Amino acid sequence: MAQDKPARRPRAETPKGFRDYFGAEVTERKAMLDAIATVYHRHGFEALETSAVETVEALGKFLPDVDRPNEGVFAWQDEAAAEGKGGDWLALRYDLTAPLARVAAQYRNDLPAPYRRYAMGPVWRNEKPGPGRFRQFYQCDADTVGAPSVAADAEICAMLADALETVGIPHGDYIVRVNNRKVLNGVMEVAGILTPDDPAAFAQERGIVLRAIDKIDRLGEGGVRALIGAGRMDESGDFTRGAGLSEAQADVILAFMAARRISNAVTLGALGDLVAQSATGREGVEELATIARLLDAQGYGPDRIVIDPGVVRGLGYYTGPVFEAELTFEILDDKGRPRQFGSVAGGGRYDDLVKRFTGQAVPATGVSIGVDRLLAALRAKGRVGGTAPGPVVVTVMDRDRMADYMAMAAELRREGLRAEVYLGNPKNFGNQLKYADRRASPVAVIQGSAELDRGVVILKDLVLGAQIAAGASLEEWKSRPAQVEVPRADLVAAVRGMLAS
Amino acid sequence: MAQDKPARRPRAETPKGFRDYFGAEVTERKAMLDAIATVYHRHGFEALETSAVETVEALGKFLPDVDRPNEGVFAWQDEAAAEGKGGDWLALRYDLTAPLARVAAQYRNDLPAPYRRYAMGPVWRNEKPGPGRFRQFYQCDADTVGAPSVAADAEICAMLADALETVGIPHGDYIVRVNNRKVLNGVMEVAGILTPDDPAAFAQERGIVLRAIDKIDRLGEGGVRALIGAGRMDESGDFTRGAGLSEAQADVILAFMAARRISNAVTLGALGDLVAQSATGREGVEELATIARLLDAQGYGPDRIVIDPGVVRGLGYYTGPVFEAELTFEILDDKGRPRQFGSVAGGGRYDDLVKRFTGQAVPATGVSIGVDRLLAALRAKGRVGGTAPGPVVVTVMDRDRMADYMAMAAELRREGLRAEVYLGNPKNFGNQLKYADRRASPVAVIQGSAELDRGVVILKDLVLGAQIAAGASLEEWKSRPAQVEVPRADLVAAVRGMLAS
Repeated sequence: MAQDKPARRPRAETPKGFRDYFGAEVTERKAMLDAIATVYHRHGFEALETSAVETVEALGKFLPDVDRPNEGVFAWQDEAAAEGKGGDWLALRYDLTAPLARVAAQYRNDLPAPYRRYAMGPVWRNEKPGPGRFRQFYQCDADTVGAPSVAADAEICAMLADALETVGIPHGDYIVRVNNRKVLNGVMEVAGILTPDDPAAFAQERGIVLRAIDKIDRLGEGGVRALIGAGRMDESGDFTRGAGLSEAQADVILAFMAARRISNAVTLGALGDLVAQSATGREGVEELATIARLLDAQGYGPDRIVIDPGVVRGLGYYTGPVFEAELTFEILDDKGRPRQFGSVAGGGRYDDLVKRFTGQAVPATGVSIGVDRLLAALRAKGRVGGTAPGPVVVTVMDRDRMADYMAMAAELRREGLRAEVYLGNPKNFGNQLKYADRRASPVAVIQGSAELDRGVVILKDLVLGAQIAAGASLEEWKSRPAQVEVPRADLVAAVRGMLAS
Repeated sequence: MAQDKPARRPRAETPKGFRDYFGAEVTERKAMLDAIATVYHRHGFEALETSAVETVEALGKFLPDVDRPNEGVFAWQDEAAAEGKGGDWLALRYDLTAPLARVAAQYRNDLPAPYRRYAMGPVWRNEKPGPGRFRQFYQCDADTVGAPSVAADAEICAMLADALETVGIPHGDYIVRVNNRKVLNGVMEVAGILTPDDPAAFAQERGIVLRAIDKIDRLGEGGVRALIGAGRMDESGDFTRGAGLSEAQADVILAFMAARRISNAVTLGALGDLVAQSATGREGVEELATIARLLDAQGYGPDRIVIDPGVVRGLGYYTGPVFEAELTFEILDDKGRPRQFGSVAGGGRYDDLVKRFTGQAVPATGVSIGVDRLLAALRAKGRVGGTAPGPVVVTVMDRDRMADYMAMAAELRREGLRAEVYLGNPKNFGNQLKYADRRASPVAVIQGSAELDRGVVILKDLVLGAQIAAGASLEEWKSRPAQVEVPRADLVAAVRGMLAS
């Protein structure tokens, strides 16, 4: 008879593509999001927290007739809520926009119109995990539903600038770039690769052109001209097929690109001339002009928010203004070369998302901040991630006197100081100091029987101790001892003094 | 040939058992959790945020060999991360303790020992939804892993009291009750229904006895005696089978119950006498005595934290001290009868959860606050849920002057006031005031061409306006007009004045 195999122990591992966040990783992100929420709230936006789980049907994008509709999302069939027969397919939300569209439709009779809301929280993507690519990450969105005017888009852009400055990206270190899908479409019309009567024609060419525009900073004018023409061979010899546009057609696209970032007035004039033959294009330029004027009136000049035809934004659902916030300071890349930090937020107008549910068009516009990227930028600028001090650690010299040690910690806390008692096995005092070190504790409190008899406590300055260990001179050591003895009654005041120094 | 059915529109609905949270529902909960986090942090606890998704294997509790191991959890098989063959089963976490046990095992070489952590966030239960029973809800936990001493349990109880007082439950409106599973086991030994050599025997009887103890407040002594004896018939005539204990055995249990809530010293003396024959029982009483002594030394008397043998706590994994926070003030139930608010938090010591992963016992203790219940208690006490004012609404009298209106809102915001411009269709002014009303706006700002010509703005006091509409006298109306005209330059000062009144 075969012997029973011993039960295998479960692996203590996060699932592939997921991770845990510890201590400051949590609190720094939270502080940043809290600051952003304050800005959104001051602009009249209300918090919304939808559930993490939606029906696949409401999320859209996925075919309801495939057997397992989980392409890109984590999905499962809801059996517990079903009466006998198979239940709905449920899925974790993959962004915060799809749930907003569902909410706007579900509560359309109860919500104020327009409805301004912000949302912050994790989203999930069922993609193959890779290095630095996680399947759960934070998004931070603000959207206005039900406002047809581009004043709503202008407001979102201004609010985005405020949010960036509030979290610590100063004026001059970022730029919000604004474009309009209608202008892009107008240019395509003029270039002859978009016919309003047959919008499906030339779709492939337009895709290549849009991707080429998006790469102008990397490829330069020559690279873009190659890509939208016959094709482009890169340094490695790889060939990318082009859109096949004629020289004349390519000239239109390049004239469009040349209009970027001169001044808002010049850019808008150039764009207006270029798309004069397209009704859609003219409408787009008009909208951009309105946005620029509204922003100017509130003091957001082109040094902060600029009209820039180079902005494309990948998502297919945008229908009007699109915008992107870029950080313009340099950081060092993996190989030590300076490069611009790049995009941290983006958004635009999407007028068709709510229509899926109700059949009625509902105008909407919004922005999504890349939480992890913005946090990384703040770290790169030294705005967060300083050495937050750990708690004061009260050590345990005599395990029968635990009540005394806990009373000391309680006293410190009552005065607003962060403090804890060592709760491991107190036998080895060295372990207690190692623990204090690992906790980044600034001060250790020590009271053995000798100190108790004399009514004193010893305070060990662990910050200074670390400096001395790192090589302070004998004079420094003498002039400011890393360890002092103070009366028990002076505990709080003495700790406070040591923390201040 | 059959005609194509028109595509059905997706339903705009949350999945069954899920819900959305709007505005103050989000921010009030957040404010409460932030206040609790401050208390935890001051006690030396560090934030931990694990991913929402765990492997079913790591979550435990569920059999790995069933085809679809989703009993009680939302689970699915991870195909994207698998190379060809079937991937791991993944699931949404059902509490915050199981992920902590996984983290404590996974990072055991990197975490400080003991490791104090707090965690706040949603958890998911795949249960049949019912009225008021949701499948996603918040938990708020604090745990200490790696501290064998009951000083850690005492610390958690004191911190729980601090947390309750910090969020607005004053001293006198709550009680933290502490018991010990070892004392319960000792009593069972003495009553003859737990044999240390054969722990499986009498399991059913013990279950009935524990449930009876848990019901003492409702059933009284007589009801408990019936339940642990021959059985109990309730008023409706329904019969509940009893544990079948003899009178002598029942006397032991009732003596145990009688020891509750006299004074800590008397309770401990009575419990000590009762379990004198059980080594486990004596150890439990000794632990409770230590906890009471440690809490006394920090100023937490039995008016805040009390030894109470009536605390049972359902979860099977507790191995030592167990505790529960109860709110003692009365609220009215559905039928208008006063009743005590009841339990809002509970926890205890669980020394075996990490062992599943590593094979080594790791002592742990912690508490979980029922976020929704505590929030409901704060609302019942009027601590949250006041009428948070909405934003100042700048109305649009002339759509060509949007830039002016946006500049007004920006000015107000720069001075820290919450303000927004009406972004709907401005044609019908009545709709703008209806909108302001729905937004709970305190002040509407109005500037038509007549006001513009005279360099003034009109401020409409909507709070006062509502009072007048609700029946103020003519004198009141005259003495404090609900509408004033002020110079445009005084906009911010005048709005501020109106908000202050």
